[in-house]
Amino acid sequence: MDRQTLIARIRATRSLLCVGLDTEPGRVPEPFRRESDPVGAYNRAIVEATHDLTVAYKFNLAFYEALGAAGWESLERTLEAMPKDVFLIADAKRGDIGNTARKYAEAFFDRLGFDAVTVAPYMGRDAVTPFLGRPGKWAIVLGVTSNEGALDFQFLEVNGGPDRLFEVVVDQVATWGSADDTMFVAGATRPKVLAEVRRRVPDHFLLVPGVGAQGGDLDQVLDAGMNQDGGLLINSSRGILYAGTGSDALPAARRAALELQQAMEAAMRVKGVV
Amino acid sequence: MDRQTLIARIRATRSLLCVGLDTEPGRVPEPFRRESDPVGAYNRAIVEATHDLTVAYKFNLAFYEALGAAGWESLERTLEAMPKDVFLIADAKRGDIGNTARKYAEAFFDRLGFDAVTVAPYMGRDAVTPFLGRPGKWAIVLGVTSNEGALDFQFLEVNGGPDRLFEVVVDQVATWGSADDTMFVAGATRPKVLAEVRRRVPDHFLLVPGVGAQGGDLDQVLDAGMNQDGGLLINSSRGILYAGTGSDALPAARRAALELQQAMEAAMRVKGVV
Repeated sequence: MDRQTLIARIRATRSLLCVGLDTEPGRVPEPFRRESDPVGAYNRAIVEATHDLTVAYKFNLAFYEALGAAGWESLERTLEAMPKDVFLIADAKRGDIGNTARKYAEAFFDRLGFDAVTVAPYMGRDAVTPFLGRPGKWAIVLGVTSNEGALDFQFLEVNGGPDRLFEVVVDQVATWGSADDTMFVAGATRPKVLAEVRRRVPDHFLLVPGVGAQGGDLDQVLDAGMNQDGGLLINSSRGILYAGTGSDALPAARRAALELQQAMEAAMRVKGVV
Repeated sequence: MDRQTLIARIRATRSLLCVGLDTEPGRVPEPFRRESDPVGAYNRAIVEATHDLTVAYKFNLAFYEALGAAGWESLERTLEAMPKDVFLIADAKRGDIGNTARKYAEAFFDRLGFDAVTVAPYMGRDAVTPFLGRPGKWAIVLGVTSNEGALDFQFLEVNGGPDRLFEVVVDQVATWGSADDTMFVAGATRPKVLAEVRRRVPDHFLLVPGVGAQGGDLDQVLDAGMNQDGGLLINSSRGILYAGTGSDALPAARRAALELQQAMEAAMRVKGVV
């Protein structure tokens, strides 16, 4: 999905919501556990319940790989059933040398039909560029993450300071591609840091994890990160997937998605995005 | 496989060789292409041809994921057929927050039976610690990689210098676990840098990619990285898998492995490792 289509979907749904399908077999609600592929069946139901409120769906691949070949099949079946008008993210956090990165690009873009793949920057340019320059396809590079461990290395001062590693990563990676094929992960848990990333890449989309279970505040994220196109994909996984239990799981998922979408719409109206 | 067993295998095989099973369907030699699972069949034959010269086998997961569920099945079938006395590495370069990292540890250690997983350090401590503290299981953390892109971020001076990012990563990560559950990736292409990693972590095992196709020199690697236990797992992938063609593929693979093993044995004899 190219940038203009993505922005059009944001305006049509009046939403910046990315729903994370980090579905665990043991947490699939009761009615779906009787299906032959409980994870795939619950994913499809969640998509049906939230699709009109959602811009993107993100698949955390660890949750599928943990199930082996069966998990890979759940993933493939879920992807085949996805609506064509949503943006699909493989949250893979891959990062490897050129010939390996090309294999991953082939797997995620060509075989599975994802629009975007999350990529770790530690191995540098040849780990990232195989994902770039493909029309409608995106690398989403880890800039600054939402977790406690982000402090270990991402905030080290580099090159004599005051720039920190994540700032140098964002500046540098932005020169390898463009705002048409590169996004950055910028966590919700440190809004001032998110604002700094936005300042450095005013036009790039940012994928923002960490709202909800990890403690990030939605209004602070919207304030720190939105740009004239919306410019954010704000992820919620557990807060939607497990909003309710039993027969209330899907209505509760929709209510949780709607609450996020309404706050996003209000903020976008104030900024004139919609 | 615990540290003592790994060292015993090094002494028994008089080898530091890790064979990388980065097998591509299009490069599987002719006699194996007629099998129902050509990649799995060729892998098993390569293992049979090289097993007595080899300490470890490394699976670059991108090559299997690129094939979808079928690739995952090739991987599982290859793993089921592996001898019990070799060290098995999932070259996955994963790095994600705690609950996701735990999923990966579950997938690679518990489901697939790998001894070790390569891990990217960018997300910090909670991306690494879920792989630590499991007897006989290892995290192999990216320290300094063999590729050109390593120069982009790994060599940035941090904290006012002169330490560079990879040095701080190695120092820091070494405090999270021990030489019994942590190894580091240290590329073969910059022997002085490899020597610096060895100086900082004298007892840790180092996984060394980049000999052969990427241009690293084996003797320089042995000189820079060996310690009293051997302390190195030196990887060769394409140089063994594709050493010959057609019916010469397996004899040529064995010759290539033997040549590496003999150089390793000679260096280990000089240092008194064997």
